[in-house]
Amino acid sequence: MARFIKKQKHEIGLPPDELLFRGDKKSEEVTIRVIDFDSKNLEENALNELTGVLKYQEKKTVTWLNIDGLHNPGLMQEIAMVFDLDDLIMANVMNTTARPTVHEFDNCIFISVKMLQLNEDSGMISVENLSLILTESILISFQEKKGDVFEPIRERIRKKKKRIRNGWTDYLAFALLDIVIDNYIYIISVLGEKIEVLEEHLGQNQPDASVIKKINAYKRELNFLRRNIRPAKEMILALSKMESEFIFENTYVHYKELLDNMNQAIDSSDSYREILTDQLNLYHTTISSKLNDIMKFLTIFSVIFIPLTFIAGIYGTNFEVLPELKFQYSYFIMLAVMVVMATAMLIYFKKKKWF
Amino acid sequence: MARFIKKQKHEIGLPPDELLFRGDKKSEEVTIRVIDFDSKNLEENALNELTGVLKYQEKKTVTWLNIDGLHNPGLMQEIAMVFDLDDLIMANVMNTTARPTVHEFDNCIFISVKMLQLNEDSGMISVENLSLILTESILISFQEKKGDVFEPIRERIRKKKKRIRNGWTDYLAFALLDIVIDNYIYIISVLGEKIEVLEEHLGQNQPDASVIKKINAYKRELNFLRRNIRPAKEMILALSKMESEFIFENTYVHYKELLDNMNQAIDSSDSYREILTDQLNLYHTTISSKLNDIMKFLTIFSVIFIPLTFIAGIYGTNFEVLPELKFQYSYFIMLAVMVVMATAMLIYFKKKKWF
Amino acid sequence: MARFIKKQKHEIGLPPDELLFRGDKKSEEVTIRVIDFDSKNLEENALNELTGVLKYQEKKTVTWLNIDGLHNPGLMQEIAMVFDLDDLIMANVMNTTARPTVHEFDNCIFISVKMLQLNEDSGMISVENLSLILTESILISFQEKKGDVFEPIRERIRKKKKRIRNGWTDYLAFALLDIVIDNYIYIISVLGEKIEVLEEHLGQNQPDASVIKKINAYKRELNFLRRNIRPAKEMILALSKMESEFIFENTYVHYKELLDNMNQAIDSSDSYREILTDQLNLYHTTISSKLNDIMKFLTIFSVIFIPLTFIAGIYGTNFEVLPELKFQYSYFIMLAVMVVMATAMLIYFKKKKWF
Amino acid sequence: MARFIKKQKHEIGLPPDELLFRGDKKSEEVTIRVIDFDSKNLEENALNELTGVLKYQEKKTVTWLNIDGLHNPGLMQEIAMVFDLDDLIMANVMNTTARPTVHEFDNCIFISVKMLQLNEDSGMISVENLSLILTESILISFQEKKGDVFEPIRERIRKKKKRIRNGWTDYLAFALLDIVIDNYIYIISVLGEKIEVLEEHLGQNQPDASVIKKINAYKRELNFLRRNIRPAKEMILALSKMESEFIFENTYVHYKELLDNMNQAIDSSDSYREILTDQLNLYHTTISSKLNDIMKFLTIFSVIFIPLTFIAGIYGTNFEVLPELKFQYSYFIMLAVMVVMATAMLIYFKKKKWF
Amino acid sequence: MARFIKKQKHEIGLPPDELLFRGDKKSEEVTIRVIDFDSKNLEENALNELTGVLKYQEKKTVTWLNIDGLHNPGLMQEIAMVFDLDDLIMANVMNTTARPTVHEFDNCIFISVKMLQLNEDSGMISVENLSLILTESILISFQEKKGDVFEPIRERIRKKKKRIRNGWTDYLAFALLDIVIDNYIYIISVLGEKIEVLEEHLGQNQPDASVIKKINAYKRELNFLRRNIRPAKEMILALSKMESEFIFENTYVHYKELLDNMNQAIDSSDSYREILTDQLNLYHTTISSKLNDIMKFLTIFSVIFIPLTFIAGIYGTNFEVLPELKFQYSYFIMLAVMVVMATAMLIYFKKKKWF
Repeated sequence: MARFIKKQKHEIGLPPDELLFRGDKKSEEVTIRVIDFDSKNLEENALNELTGVLKYQEKKTVTWLNIDGLHNPGLMQEIAMVFDLDDLIMANVMNTTARPTVHEFDNCIFISVKMLQLNEDSGMISVENLSLILTESILISFQEKKGDVFEPIRERIRKKKKRIRNGWTDYLAFALLDIVIDNYIYIISVLGEKIEVLEEHLGQNQPDASVIKKINAYKRELNFLRRNIRPAKEMILALSKMESEFIFENTYVHYKELLDNMNQAIDSSDSYREILTDQLNLYHTTISSKLNDIMKFLTIFSVIFIPLTFIAGIYGTNFEVLPELKFQYSYFIMLAVMVVMATAMLIYFKKKKWF
Repeated sequence: MARFIKKQKHEIGLPPDELLFRGDKKSEEVTIRVIDFDSKNLEENALNELTGVLKYQEKKTVTWLNIDGLHNPGLMQEIAMVFDLDDLIMANVMNTTARPTVHEFDNCIFISVKMLQLNEDSGMISVENLSLILTESILISFQEKKGDVFEPIRERIRKKKKRIRNGWTDYLAFALLDIVIDNYIYIISVLGEKIEVLEEHLGQNQPDASVIKKINAYKRELNFLRRNIRPAKEMILALSKMESEFIFENTYVHYKELLDNMNQAIDSSDSYREILTDQLNLYHTTISSKLNDIMKFLTIFSVIFIPLTFIAGIYGTNFEVLPELKFQYSYFIMLAVMVVMATAMLIYFKKKKWF
Repeated sequence: MARFIKKQKHEIGLPPDELLFRGDKKSEEVTIRVIDFDSKNLEENALNELTGVLKYQEKKTVTWLNIDGLHNPGLMQEIAMVFDLDDLIMANVMNTTARPTVHEFDNCIFISVKMLQLNEDSGMISVENLSLILTESILISFQEKKGDVFEPIRERIRKKKKRIRNGWTDYLAFALLDIVIDNYIYIISVLGEKIEVLEEHLGQNQPDASVIKKINAYKRELNFLRRNIRPAKEMILALSKMESEFIFENTYVHYKELLDNMNQAIDSSDSYREILTDQLNLYHTTISSKLNDIMKFLTIFSVIFIPLTFIAGIYGTNFEVLPELKFQYSYFIMLAVMVVMATAMLIYFKKKKWF
Repeated sequence: MARFIKKQKHEIGLPPDELLFRGDKKSEEVTIRVIDFDSKNLEENALNELTGVLKYQEKKTVTWLNIDGLHNPGLMQEIAMVFDLDDLIMANVMNTTARPTVHEFDNCIFISVKMLQLNEDSGMISVENLSLILTESILISFQEKKGDVFEPIRERIRKKKKRIRNGWTDYLAFALLDIVIDNYIYIISVLGEKIEVLEEHLGQNQPDASVIKKINAYKRELNFLRRNIRPAKEMILALSKMESEFIFENTYVHYKELLDNMNQAIDSSDSYREILTDQLNLYHTTISSKLNDIMKFLTIFSVIFIPLTFIAGIYGTNFEVLPELKFQYSYFIMLAVMVVMATAMLIYFKKKKWF
Repeated sequence: MARFIKKQKHEIGLPPDELLFRGDKKSEEVTIRVIDFDSKNLEENALNELTGVLKYQEKKTVTWLNIDGLHNPGLMQEIAMVFDLDDLIMANVMNTTARPTVHEFDNCIFISVKMLQLNEDSGMISVENLSLILTESILISFQEKKGDVFEPIRERIRKKKKRIRNGWTDYLAFALLDIVIDNYIYIISVLGEKIEVLEEHLGQNQPDASVIKKINAYKRELNFLRRNIRPAKEMILALSKMESEFIFENTYVHYKELLDNMNQAIDSSDSYREILTDQLNLYHTTISSKLNDIMKFLTIFSVIFIPLTFIAGIYGTNFEVLPELKFQYSYFIMLAVMVVMATAMLIYFKKKKWF
């Protein structure tokens, strides 16, 4: 399947609120985890059924509901009913191929963004869709598979870190997005270090064929990354300008920091892109200048022998009358002439700075 | 005829409301189809004459009038009269070469967009103009030829899908445009998969001449597609910002989703364009580096034989006095010297990393 | 003289209202033509003197005054006086090298735009300046030379076409500009067809030197065209947004259509520009890949003969002791060895996919 | 010193109002010239001391004070005191390396722009800084050296041209800026003509090395020019939008015309830049296609002789048993075979369209 | 570590107000310096402990607190407490890898910018983070290491320069930023001079391999510089538009001048970037045209000898019947023919302008 965009033929013309899972199924099970807290109390729970959520719903606490696995339309329907969400939102949650976006609804904000993860061995970047639904006291996060990057946040909640425990769902959403963007920067940083190592290598060594493979591999990953983070910037910008009842005044400073981080990520990825282009050019320059040197050397070498061989050819002819052949010192004279000619040509080429 | 833009000399200077069919005639017959529905009732009809439409006009239901074939000025005139439309609009409907656009009139909204269809065999994209006229209770859609992509919508209407049956003409227009844009994304997705397959192929195999043909073919189709969808984005943007009495408040969320989809389509087409450019560069790099290797090998090969042949030439001369010729082991010494020279040169070139 | 921009040294520092003709004189005579009409009456006249215009000035009809030839400062002065126009405007009218622009004055709107005309034989585009002065009941159009493209409009006036006969000077100005822009699109369409024909040709045939000449010629004309129509778009945009007493509410829909047309023209010219660049690249790729094939073939051919010639050279030496020479089958063995060597090399090269 | 930007180390950290001359000293003397006029009276004066200015200061006339030479901090201090100007302004006046800009102060407008002058012999463009201080009744212009381009304006004042004599300082400033921009256009026009001549030359002749030198020289000058006029456009734009008490309502039409001219200048310089790039590409294409032709010819030539020489080599061997040597017509047969072979190869290459 | 962006894995998910030093530790010690002044009094102090600052805090004077070394979280905590600053700000101060930015808080403005320093020997640019916290009467500046570029400002304060002594913290902040930007311009100016020297060198000499190394080195430094100053421009722009109680009306003119300077810096760096690209192209053109000349010469040289050697080869064959061999003048005729052939070929090549 295409890595950048996916659309099956049968998906064309579906109603916008059809609860159809679109994407690659990355998880078998669906798991539900709840963390419910205010500045004083904390309750963590792994649920089997959605009904267990109901009790948190009424409490004036922050409830973070995390759902791993999106392919169960029944559950989605249930969530829509329990939290009184538009089917449209749930359809969006299940569409993992959609573009990062933020939409404000009457009773919630819907946020969708790509989580990137670097496979440190293969250097390949994998992508997972993260959807957030933000209401006054509940934050629901939807991930495609188990095993997330949000453990540090759970730790901060458990350790009673003031900001997050005193904060509201909007702050919690910031914390999640912050980790997502930190991951972007981390990936760029890892990729960037590889690129800079390659640059140093290029400055000192003769490049070989492996260099071009590396440059192209880095370029492909960087392009993939850029394609995923560019729309995220638009989303964060829209979020930081949104005037919503679900976002408190003092959370905007954090959203603006997210924007700063996104800008840094995009700046850096632009810079590395430029560097890769420069490297590609440098590689070609080095390779072709080396080839030029070789070809020049070889050509000059050949050229010197051409007239000498010609002279030998002349005295190899079998004419009956060829006066020089009879003369006693002819052979030695010929050898001497050949040496002189070769030397003269070498001097001439040297003087012309041809080698 | 030019594929991108068409203008006959005799068309210059026509009045803007002249009902002249501009474009390639793609259908002989003109067919009229009506679907009239509200949340409870549904009536479908294929009409011979426009007069059959009159009865739907007064009813407080949504009437979708679909017309295939645009080359009949008489019918257009009639439609203008029956629905009290400006001649300008009908002239625009008949101009299938115009740019996607949206205009608000006093009693309707006029929307024009390109429908793209991929011929899966040839890989060629064909284009058809779709015009929509949106009034309070009637949506008229004009297509160039029979056989459309809107069957799924008719199905949704027949199956009493709530949103569409409760919706109004603005929602119906959204549904049509949604399918058009879904088709854009589907085409990009199909094209994209081909491009990614090619990329994988390029990474593993020696490229041959067919690759360059493919790249150029993909590029041409992608450019054609981009040229048709870029103005569509402007149109959708204008539509989603239009403050019109014919569009209900809660339909805007759908129009904004259209915009998201258009952005995704354009993003992806940009990405694939970049990938094609990279592929082209990679192709050239691979080809030229292979050629360089061959030329280098061959040149080195030649260079080694040049001095050897020269030596043989010297002892092929017919000088009467050429002392070495008399000596018993000369021939073997010469052969030995030749072997040593060739070896020395090979070692020298190897050391210089010339091969 | 430069084709893109012209400035004589003596023109520097002239006052802005100096009535100096700037440009190439394209016509000897100055001719004045008047069409005066309302929905009922029509009067056409060719005048010798400006005084003949006075009688139309007071009538509540639309008066279209067309002047061919701009090099007569006296007439310009007179026009300024008769219609009470600022000298600045007349100076602008006489400056045929200026940039397309629109300015609103107290008692008129001044519009300037480039008329392009394609010489169908040479493929060269020629440019002529058109200035329009739009007051409440008079439209004055200034052209550089006789023979215009506005005949269809005169026809429409004569044929009592409703819109133009009921319209006002603002509609007449639209009709003139519409023809100018239709001409842009026509030229792009003609140029575009040539470019697409070339593309098809390139896809099927071996390109020769004439292709590159054509590409460069098309490119030059396209650039020339683009340079003239890009500022025109800004002008049309400004016009369509201008809130002026001389433009009626219901004319704006026409001006917006002009903008649509301009956008289409610019879109298409951008597309063709891209296509030309792609063609240039394709041409270079094809040429160089063909050259590579030839060089490779020839080099391989040479390389095969090099060791064979060397062997012949060895047995051409005149050593007294050269055992192989005496042996009866030496010659045939040598020939056999040569055949084997050549075959082996061919197989090796083939296996390495060198040809 | 760098041509584009200059900053000495000791200049870092100076206070913004330090009266330090920054730039290259282009004039030894400082000269002061006054023109004082209203619609009826005119007085011209060359002053030794600033005190002579005082008498004009009170009069309700337009006073144009022109100062050539900026390296005298004492005089600058005096000017600041006499006209009650901020030291900041005078520091800006003395900094000839600054970017074109316009700033509004409480009692004046400060304008700075680059005057360009073309050395018609060398084709080099030289740059001089022009600062204008515009108050209600006084315009002070500062130039780096004597000998300016403003003589036509003095002439217009002397000749009692109405607009300038009735105008105010804002109109005078327009007149000065108009000449500066006219000079930009003139330079582009001269450069452009050279470029177009070169283009015609390129279309007809074989390019030689001088062409590339010319292209690079033109490119350098064009870039230098562009760098100086681009910020000027921003300045003019800001000026034409400035709502200041020192600019009369009816002068804005002139400022807008300046903007039109700037746009034309920038458009044209963009066009010529594109043309130069195209020329460079054409040059490379022509050169390399010619080289390809030569190399191809020479290679084919060599290839034809290679097998022939090989055959001669075979019959030059000294084998005792070489049957063909004995046969009477061998030599002639060999020659015939050679002719046939050469012909066959020529036909083959021709058929393959290799030459 | 990557030079452009740094992110450790363990930093992901930290709370935004975690006081963690991020970056390379550039200094061991932390030093605190205070300058406290108003227009009359001045007090300078190097402090060991932060408590010494308290006495300045209450005074109605400008207090400039400069802190070198950022790796002490304890001190940062203390500063936050003493001056009642949000932990967020201190976390930002300690993050030296962040993007230049400006944020307004309730009781202060936070500014962060990169200080660049050129190592004149290596030509490498090093970067240091500068953070400013601006309150009503206190300016705190944070630098990564001792030894700054702000000495000229201390001098201006000591020398009782009026503007700075009468100014407020907002003016002091301007003075610091002014020096930072002056340094940008100085570095561009130094780099620019090197680039222009190289350009002159390129115009006159045969380029050698060192040129390409220089171009690439300059390009790398320029890109590094551009990446650091581009976001600074956004920051300055935001600052100059900020409506804050901590910035006095008459300081904005200075902030606007900063913006002018930033624009100049960016313009110039853009220009030099273009010049470097042009140089790279010129280098390649020169190198390849020289190679072409050599190859052409050598090929022509070879081609002339090829048929001559062939002729000699023919008369070196040992056919028993080879009539020419017997003829007395054959040898001389052969030599003559060879001379004629070589001359004819030379003339032909010359006429075809091949050398």
